[in-house]
Amino acid sequence: MSLTRIAVIGGTGPQGRGLAYRLAHAGHAIVLGSRDAARAEAAAAELRQQLDGAEISGASNLDAAASAPVVLLAVPYDGHTELVTSLAGALAGKVVISCVNPLGFDKLGPFGLDVPAGSAAEEAAAIAGDATLVGAFHHLSAPLLLDPEADLSHEDVLVCGDDRAAKELVMGLAADVTGGRAVDAGRLRLARQLEPLTAVLISVNKRYKTRSGVAITGLTQASQGRVLA
Amino acid sequence: MSLTRIAVIGGTGPQGRGLAYRLAHAGHAIVLGSRDAARAEAAAAELRQQLDGAEISGASNLDAAASAPVVLLAVPYDGHTELVTSLAGALAGKVVISCVNPLGFDKLGPFGLDVPAGSAAEEAAAIAGDATLVGAFHHLSAPLLLDPEADLSHEDVLVCGDDRAAKELVMGLAADVTGGRAVDAGRLRLARQLEPLTAVLISVNKRYKTRSGVAITGLTQASQGRVLA
Repeated sequence: MSLTRIAVIGGTGPQGRGLAYRLAHAGHAIVLGSRDAARAEAAAAELRQQLDGAEISGASNLDAAASAPVVLLAVPYDGHTELVTSLAGALAGKVVISCVNPLGFDKLGPFGLDVPAGSAAEEAAAIAGDATLVGAFHHLSAPLLLDPEADLSHEDVLVCGDDRAAKELVMGLAADVTGGRAVDAGRLRLARQLEPLTAVLISVNKRYKTRSGVAITGLTQASQGRVLA
Repeated sequence: MSLTRIAVIGGTGPQGRGLAYRLAHAGHAIVLGSRDAARAEAAAAELRQQLDGAEISGASNLDAAASAPVVLLAVPYDGHTELVTSLAGALAGKVVISCVNPLGFDKLGPFGLDVPAGSAAEEAAAIAGDATLVGAFHHLSAPLLLDPEADLSHEDVLVCGDDRAAKELVMGLAADVTGGRAVDAGRLRLARQLEPLTAVLISVNKRYKTRSGVAITGLTQASQGRVLA
């Protein structure tokens, strides 16, 4: 797809760094955001070393969000409300991708948290009312994203959203990240299902000592990347 | 796996008939249950015609549940509480498999219903306290189950439960149903994620005009059927 500039909020965390690595590798310009701009710049420098010639910089979360037309929220759910509130102005008019997974952990393992808005993606949409939210990238393993040898092309990126053009853009980015297929999962509210599904994958990872992902069966080659919102 | 006798509650519905067809085809003895015993017997007669020599009978839901050591709940969520309450005595001491999907539909499409107990499987476990609940078979398409030509071996049956032996039994049945792989998804409470994931699949089906299913990536052949509860 055409190259774009993408701010990765929470870009020093494993999921953020992993997605930034893959997106930069595909040629997109990346601004890593962090609460601490110096930490973001250090993480950006590390990625620049790995990807010779890639356009990756670091900034505060707010400066990062303000600097790009596409903003990826790759933060823990803890603190999500406050963070999105602080960024709401900078997110206005932009495509905002949420890969936030509201999960809890106790002695029985991982579980999906109750989110008052239904899902983190819907919460962000409610707070940043002038942004166009798309849910995606919930199920990709951070270590695999960061591993140049890892082939992610057999994993499907499930994308949900209510805006067709934004969903198309994100599905293109998803194909850049995995080299495989993005699947239009439907409406944004289905993020309620996509986000906590990660609890199942973490549970499977623990049981089978692997890094699992999701694929959807029954889709033909012809349907790859088709958006029918 | 070793052959067993399985009662399919809601056995005249598409999911129940489909699972009964596949389980009977694998050699298990099936009792279809329905609110109306005569309807159950008619559906059983139809399946017997399709599967020459298969042991399939029909009965009221209560008589069906009372007659088998393994009971599969294949009913709509609407009326689930009352049904399980009415069967609780007959379910005591048994392995009870829930493939119940609490879903709602509105103009935006399918969505997961709020279930006070968290999931239908947990609700059944709370009501039928002396039964051992296992969640499975949520994501298999009923028309594909009923189609003798349909190959389901590429779909994973995600199985959740808190009892290791019961989960192993159900994973064996799952392999009989699909000819493929069952995946130990973890604790019973993860039914909260497995059940409404069906809303995503229905949404995908509508968008891509297909009958989708789920596969888990990152599992090796060696991990097939392994239970590590």
